[in-house]
Amino acid sequence: MIYSVEVQVTAPVTDTEVTDRVADAIRNIFPEASVEEHPGELLATTHQVDHFSELLHEQAILDTARGQFFEHRDGNVVEFDLKKQAAFQGVVNFAVGNPDELGDIHVRMRVTEPSVEAFVDYVAPPTEEGRPVESRDER
Amino acid sequence: MIYSVEVQVTAPVTDTEVTDRVADAIRNIFPEASVEEHPGELLATTHQVDHFSELLHEQAILDTARGQFFEHRDGNVVEFDLKKQAAFQGVVNFAVGNPDELGDIHVRMRVTEPSVEAFVDYVAPPTEEGRPVESRDER
Repeated sequence: MIYSVEVQVTAPVTDTEVTDRVADAIRNIFPEASVEEHPGELLATTHQVDHFSELLHEQAILDTARGQFFEHRDGNVVEFDLKKQAAFQGVVNFAVGNPDELGDIHVRMRVTEPSVEAFVDYVAPPTEEGRPVESRDER
Repeated sequence: MIYSVEVQVTAPVTDTEVTDRVADAIRNIFPEASVEEHPGELLATTHQVDHFSELLHEQAILDTARGQFFEHRDGNVVEFDLKKQAAFQGVVNFAVGNPDELGDIHVRMRVTEPSVEAFVDYVAPPTEEGRPVESRDER
């Protein structure tokens, strides 16, 4: 699928942390991200979500992901939080229930093409009996 | 005042953190603490609370501290949580409302002499119009 999305990832870097390790946490989820260092925070940007999507498939958390994507959707923008320490291990773990907690990685995806719904269906397809309705190979 | 207290401090060390910096956070509050490294956690012990008490006085948070000490008191044991990043800056910041949050420094004080009440009065004396009722110099 051809999609156009602008992904902005921010992650706090606290005093007891190592900046490079927080950058690694981001890159484990978004390998192509370009990471900028700011005081106390990293800002990363990318247009690629394929690895993120693969992780959602491998971890079999497509339904959870869809729920998260649509929960705070605002027009063509999808926002959600990921646990930083899980990301450091290469695992997608949505941070729920406490959106203001320091330490989370915040992800903001602005979808230009084709539409938020189609984009989400691509990244995390709907499932039936726990399996993606549309096989990735068929797309 | 002569007191006898066993202070046990635990702090998680997450993957993105530096163990020595977390140890520094503990020592900024309890300079005499002996710190042991365990997988994913530091365990520190001390019998000295004078620096901690000084910080409570300097920061003028004696009433807050007393509230925290008595909130989860269990017999002769007083337990509370401190924010790790504040501690790294040498500042006492009680972690309230979310006791299970990862990242906090947990402090457990078991008082042997003279009594929990007298010990708390020493560490964080009651105040009147925001000032300690008993001046530290008079003790």
